[in-house]
Amino acid sequence: MKALLNEIRHNPLLWLLVFVPVVLAAAKLKPEAHTLLFVLSVLAIVPLAALLSHATESVAAKTGDAVGGLLNATLGNLTELVIALTALRAAQYTLVKASIAGAIVTNTLFMLGASFLLGGLKHHVQEFNRVNARVQAGLLFLATIALLVPSLASQTNSTAAAEFTQKLSLGLAVLLIVAYGLGMLFSLKTHKEVFASAEHGEEGEKPWPMGLALAALAGVTVLVALVSEVFVESVQKAAEAFGMSQAFVGFIVVSLVGGAAEMASAFSGARKNRLDLSVGIALGSASQIALFVAPVLVILSYFIGPTPMSLDFWSGAMVMMFFAVLTAALVTNSGRSAWFPGVLLLMVYLVFAMALYLMPPREQQPGKGVEAIQQQSK
Amino acid sequence: MKALLNEIRHNPLLWLLVFVPVVLAAAKLKPEAHTLLFVLSVLAIVPLAALLSHATESVAAKTGDAVGGLLNATLGNLTELVIALTALRAAQYTLVKASIAGAIVTNTLFMLGASFLLGGLKHHVQEFNRVNARVQAGLLFLATIALLVPSLASQTNSTAAAEFTQKLSLGLAVLLIVAYGLGMLFSLKTHKEVFASAEHGEEGEKPWPMGLALAALAGVTVLVALVSEVFVESVQKAAEAFGMSQAFVGFIVVSLVGGAAEMASAFSGARKNRLDLSVGIALGSASQIALFVAPVLVILSYFIGPTPMSLDFWSGAMVMMFFAVLTAALVTNSGRSAWFPGVLLLMVYLVFAMALYLMPPREQQPGKGVEAIQQQSK
Amino acid sequence: MKALLNEIRHNPLLWLLVFVPVVLAAAKLKPEAHTLLFVLSVLAIVPLAALLSHATESVAAKTGDAVGGLLNATLGNLTELVIALTALRAAQYTLVKASIAGAIVTNTLFMLGASFLLGGLKHHVQEFNRVNARVQAGLLFLATIALLVPSLASQTNSTAAAEFTQKLSLGLAVLLIVAYGLGMLFSLKTHKEVFASAEHGEEGEKPWPMGLALAALAGVTVLVALVSEVFVESVQKAAEAFGMSQAFVGFIVVSLVGGAAEMASAFSGARKNRLDLSVGIALGSASQIALFVAPVLVILSYFIGPTPMSLDFWSGAMVMMFFAVLTAALVTNSGRSAWFPGVLLLMVYLVFAMALYLMPPREQQPGKGVEAIQQQSK
Repeated sequence: MKALLNEIRHNPLLWLLVFVPVVLAAAKLKPEAHTLLFVLSVLAIVPLAALLSHATESVAAKTGDAVGGLLNATLGNLTELVIALTALRAAQYTLVKASIAGAIVTNTLFMLGASFLLGGLKHHVQEFNRVNARVQAGLLFLATIALLVPSLASQTNSTAAAEFTQKLSLGLAVLLIVAYGLGMLFSLKTHKEVFASAEHGEEGEKPWPMGLALAALAGVTVLVALVSEVFVESVQKAAEAFGMSQAFVGFIVVSLVGGAAEMASAFSGARKNRLDLSVGIALGSASQIALFVAPVLVILSYFIGPTPMSLDFWSGAMVMMFFAVLTAALVTNSGRSAWFPGVLLLMVYLVFAMALYLMPPREQQPGKGVEAIQQQSK
Repeated sequence: MKALLNEIRHNPLLWLLVFVPVVLAAAKLKPEAHTLLFVLSVLAIVPLAALLSHATESVAAKTGDAVGGLLNATLGNLTELVIALTALRAAQYTLVKASIAGAIVTNTLFMLGASFLLGGLKHHVQEFNRVNARVQAGLLFLATIALLVPSLASQTNSTAAAEFTQKLSLGLAVLLIVAYGLGMLFSLKTHKEVFASAEHGEEGEKPWPMGLALAALAGVTVLVALVSEVFVESVQKAAEAFGMSQAFVGFIVVSLVGGAAEMASAFSGARKNRLDLSVGIALGSASQIALFVAPVLVILSYFIGPTPMSLDFWSGAMVMMFFAVLTAALVTNSGRSAWFPGVLLLMVYLVFAMALYLMPPREQQPGKGVEAIQQQSK
Repeated sequence: MKALLNEIRHNPLLWLLVFVPVVLAAAKLKPEAHTLLFVLSVLAIVPLAALLSHATESVAAKTGDAVGGLLNATLGNLTELVIALTALRAAQYTLVKASIAGAIVTNTLFMLGASFLLGGLKHHVQEFNRVNARVQAGLLFLATIALLVPSLASQTNSTAAAEFTQKLSLGLAVLLIVAYGLGMLFSLKTHKEVFASAEHGEEGEKPWPMGLALAALAGVTVLVALVSEVFVESVQKAAEAFGMSQAFVGFIVVSLVGGAAEMASAFSGARKNRLDLSVGIALGSASQIALFVAPVLVILSYFIGPTPMSLDFWSGAMVMMFFAVLTAALVTNSGRSAWFPGVLLLMVYLVFAMALYLMPPREQQPGKGVEAIQQQSK
């Protein structure tokens, strides 16, 4: 407990924890103040994500590489998973899918690009383990293809097509989880010497003792779940108030909020010239979401949501994911970086963000995703 | 003849030759037993393909590199060519196109991926000549673009569009054959020293004497043609009986059957740590089909089929070809391999196979391909 | 003036300058002789482009790298810019967009491919600075994505969509110019040592004195503007007379005419085994057009044209740009070249040229581009 309080005192980000009780109280007292609740819930999620991330790392540090890797996979994107589960229970499939696609795009473009830029402004040229970057990019490429197929196939809206998309999504979900597991086997077990330089622990932050870490993990997860509920309920109305399109909120705002803690680690790694850490977090987190979180959500949707969720995405989301992954693959191919490749990645992100921001209301997430759900609900 | 019998005795695959007379007899006696005929014809084609492949190599071994390369190009994919010609004569353009696209996808993903996996399970890291992989990938990339253009252009179904697609297909066919020829000139003549390590002969299998090889070539080709006819006639009804979609049969079953012999060589090469041989067979065979077999079929369709065949493919086939070639290009780029890149390639193949297997009947190869044929047939 | 006359005497290309007064006179006397005016204006633009190119280089040589780079960006593609401005004033948005897309495709495929081929026929293997090729390819990739987004987004033809496309195009134009500026900062300032071998000046051609260069720049620009007006007015009717489709003229003929001078420099560099120069001109010119000329035209269209121009392109143009840039990125990735990669690039160009040439009239540039303009004009 003392370690926890000490951590909070020295990390200004954690001062935001004061907003956790504030937002929960406000949600009870003023359930209609959507804009206020949105702002408060964002402010509360960020420090909780940071705590969750540290607790996970502390548990992983104690259990060795193989188990630690599995834990990281299961818990690393816990914030995103809890937000998505909350949205899943509320049958907000469009928001779930937008946050999956948004997290992949934000991690591969914004998190990676800003790491390259921030690292490159301090160091002339930086090097990183290109094998790791290639394996992660390969997994992301596989995931993009797997998501593309049901999206393309379900272009007609017949019942047969909806059933096909549903069955295919379940099969692909299992396939992606298997691929993710084999990727971990490859990088943590059979060929771990090739990934060597990516194995640095995070310098400076001491891991917590096991008991505290597990307690924090449990407690913080509950808090994230409670705050996420407020966030998911308020985000759409708040977006209207801010003049932001729904697509912009789902892709950009939710992704930046959900990934806040990982971004802090990635950027700090880049400034310390430990770009392997940054690339590992950015691409690793993206492939976790694509090959673990998204498939798990599909499988869980059979038990939680009112109807099963499929993997067919809005065509705009597919285009963004495809180009984000292709750009990241091409940029990380050489294993060297400077500030300019970072700018290139950020520019591609800005192109997408600008298009989403300006998108007129009727154009937002048109078509299949929403319609398929409506059809399935009947 | 003794050499032939000796070969048959030592190669268990060739024991399947007994099914050749069986299937031909069965086709006469029970022409309505589609499922039986399908199974028998598959069992008969596999050993014939193996014999054809060995006979071709024996002829090539005697004639030197340049002529041998040309022979390989003309004869290497003879099984596929004969199957396709049989389907062409029966005006089954959808099956022809599905088998072309399927062979490209199967060779670049399944054959290459399984070679990497099987080789990687035995050898920790394997290296291969990346220049050869690049040239083949470059040719495949060109072919994919060339096939994409008429497919995209012929989206309206007017008569003018059909005529345009037809003219364009003929022009592109000539272009692709020229590009294929120049690729052979580059790798066999002007820059052959760069491709050096790919020039190993196939160890262990002695070439046949010339007379036997030529006789086998002629005789086996006739047998393949006869069995292919049974195969093409039975495949669709049999597929229904097995509950397989027509698309799955065209893309997956026909391709695996047609490529059986080459796969045996590629996998054995990978186990012997001669990955250049495997990559050469997998990518080389794919580019042969894309830049030689497919264009030759277009040109022959002016003389054989009831109407000329165009190069416009079903959009699903285009997507699969594009991603198969792009994945193979990215994976072979480094010139090094292990088991995991093999898994990645196989997973992409599984994604496609799963989608094709689950595809509801009405969705199968919708649109242009079929419609264009109907239009042309009038 | 003596230097100018001396230059004209030794450069046979410049003898074509005689067609400048001829075409201007002919346009006054026979304004209806479209085919004649088209041929004469092409013959007149080529030498003017060569002079403009040399004048720009002479000014750049005097002002040092940073300013010289900026000048090159502003003036290097002056011919294309003046042609496009003339078409913009005549509200021929389809021609403007076709010439932008055509210049990108022609420079990345034809200019680069022919350089590789011509260089490779003389030298067995050639090397070039792959860092420069990567930065240019990265910029082109960004531009392709930026152009793709409004094209995809504006698929519905509502007023809201048109307004969205317009706003987005303006935002993207600013973004691309910023990216282009940062790219120059990177290659000319912060990391110029990495681009070292690309810094050779053009051997053999002495720069002109500053006064002559500036005078030539001013005078020739006026002449190009005058001749371009004749060219833009005559090109469409002339195309009909020659039996060429409008799309073929916009993409192929205009691009080859506009880039004639740069091609002469690029090819001569490749023959002299100075492939850095060729790659720099081909990819550099393409990225100038995509990230500087096109955005500037969008911004200028608010002041010059009858209605603002957007960045939504005909889907065929998008496909060609995407594959041209992807092919160039893959081919230049290794930093080595021979004649065959050049053939591959030229073959992709031929595929596109053939499709455009054969395209039936009604299919030409269908849909959005034209319709959006019509809508905006109301």
